[in-house]
Amino acid sequence: MRNPTALAMSACLAIAALGLMAAAPVTQQGTPAAPSPQEVLDAAPVDAWRDVPAEDLVVMTLADGSVVDYQLAPDFAPVHVANIRQLVRSGYFDGASILRVQDNYVVQWGRPDEDKTEAKGIVAVPPAEYDFPAAGVAMKALPYRDAYADHVGHVKSWPVAGDGTTDWLIHCYGMIGVARDVPPDTGSGTQLYTIIGHAPRHLDRNLAVVGRIVSGMDLLADRPRGTEELGFYKDDTQRIKIVSAKMASDMDAATRPAFQILDSDTKTFDTWLNAKANRSGAFFVRPAGAVDICNALPPFRVKTS
Amino acid sequence: MRNPTALAMSACLAIAALGLMAAAPVTQQGTPAAPSPQEVLDAAPVDAWRDVPAEDLVVMTLADGSVVDYQLAPDFAPVHVANIRQLVRSGYFDGASILRVQDNYVVQWGRPDEDKTEAKGIVAVPPAEYDFPAAGVAMKALPYRDAYADHVGHVKSWPVAGDGTTDWLIHCYGMIGVARDVPPDTGSGTQLYTIIGHAPRHLDRNLAVVGRIVSGMDLLADRPRGTEELGFYKDDTQRIKIVSAKMASDMDAATRPAFQILDSDTKTFDTWLNAKANRSGAFFVRPAGAVDICNALPPFRVKTS
Repeated sequence: MRNPTALAMSACLAIAALGLMAAAPVTQQGTPAAPSPQEVLDAAPVDAWRDVPAEDLVVMTLADGSVVDYQLAPDFAPVHVANIRQLVRSGYFDGASILRVQDNYVVQWGRPDEDKTEAKGIVAVPPAEYDFPAAGVAMKALPYRDAYADHVGHVKSWPVAGDGTTDWLIHCYGMIGVARDVPPDTGSGTQLYTIIGHAPRHLDRNLAVVGRIVSGMDLLADRPRGTEELGFYKDDTQRIKIVSAKMASDMDAATRPAFQILDSDTKTFDTWLNAKANRSGAFFVRPAGAVDICNALPPFRVKTS
Repeated sequence: MRNPTALAMSACLAIAALGLMAAAPVTQQGTPAAPSPQEVLDAAPVDAWRDVPAEDLVVMTLADGSVVDYQLAPDFAPVHVANIRQLVRSGYFDGASILRVQDNYVVQWGRPDEDKTEAKGIVAVPPAEYDFPAAGVAMKALPYRDAYADHVGHVKSWPVAGDGTTDWLIHCYGMIGVARDVPPDTGSGTQLYTIIGHAPRHLDRNLAVVGRIVSGMDLLADRPRGTEELGFYKDDTQRIKIVSAKMASDMDAATRPAFQILDSDTKTFDTWLNAKANRSGAFFVRPAGAVDICNALPPFRVKTS
């Protein structure tokens, strides 16, 4: 730590360097430490990764060239997702803007002043897709407590909570929901938000969660917070323009983005989850012994093959 | 929602507008709804607020004029806090920089390359102030489950977890810790970080938590994420300079910043916490019935008297 050459690495180690170590670190007792979460991913077989379907992937390009890719969740909010696909395909979000950035809460985008004049071909008043019947849903339970729900876990790599009767998607960091007015309005999908702070779980079962950011989350979360009430931007001089939003499935298959996510229904996922809950190696002095659902979001990777 | 005039408000309502309503909303049944968290704060008596001591408050000014105020926690990490006070007073952070911004994780500041040549008069190797004996600590327990700890709650408005033997400060959004290398190094306080994402609770009891951001959190969290490993900035062209850091107690008492925090040992706090856990009013269709410790951080306000 005193050696200037080591200092850059030392700084790196300061919080989270285990993932950087190439080989499994050796504990002070001389026995090999359990693999880190990153090491588990690096060793994961090809079939531990689940494709993100191109028909669920939206490619959003901002005026500064930033590209944000997000995945829709048709299994959980089919009417809202059908609306969003239609809005994307009809060009509704081309020329829309990031409207709101509230610290430790949400980034929200759509058309200013909720202009819906061009929102055509959608279900104007979708049902309240805030939750869905638990019967028949194969949830892999997270073996740890949750502050809010009776139980939580993963359904096809999505973070889900349940009470025995219904299940629902969870408002974790990077999850996307549909902004709405007061009930019975449920929002049509013309304004969407994503979570940029500690999971605001009190929103669960109160808004329709319809997707999650796959890539470019950092390019949303680093925006200046809005100056108006609730973090809204004042006007177009503050707003960040969305140049275009496209369904990946409508793009050239050879050049469109393609992603995979760690499949929660695999043993690799279990090993990775256990490594997240029980950090080992030289840095950690006391493993947590648990991990909460929003710290257990399966990672994405670019699909290379 | 169809009325253009209402649309701005409609957008505001989209996620979290209850706090904006001036009067207690009336439910559809015609009975007054329980007050919102903001309404509880608005009605709080003066003695529900606890002063942030000037000798615990650091005023950090960035090159772009941003001012970030943070509170030290001498009751929980006295040696590290004494070090930080000394580093501040000796000018160690004047000319330091924000070195690292990793999305959904941390902002970290100090001198590049861990230059400690001017870190004088500190305890170079402090004890591991990661936790402290629970005996004699008056924790107000949060009446909800926690994913990580046997129990959690508040000690003098700080978020604390415990296992019956020891207690420890929690890595919630905005909490400040001391960066370190591998054990037995505990960090001296020359590099500090704050949490800008979902609470990374696996860091609890592995690093010394020494304080929290009081004001200006948004001015740290909105920085561009670093391009290097772990979100480090590449060089001084990316880093954000810290012009100065001062102890508020060393500044002119008439003009220095002064803050208060909702006192967790008051009935107002209990009412506020209950309102956070059980949202009512026109917007929420299903109260969560719980709130996790990192969504139960007592709010600050500017001290006006």
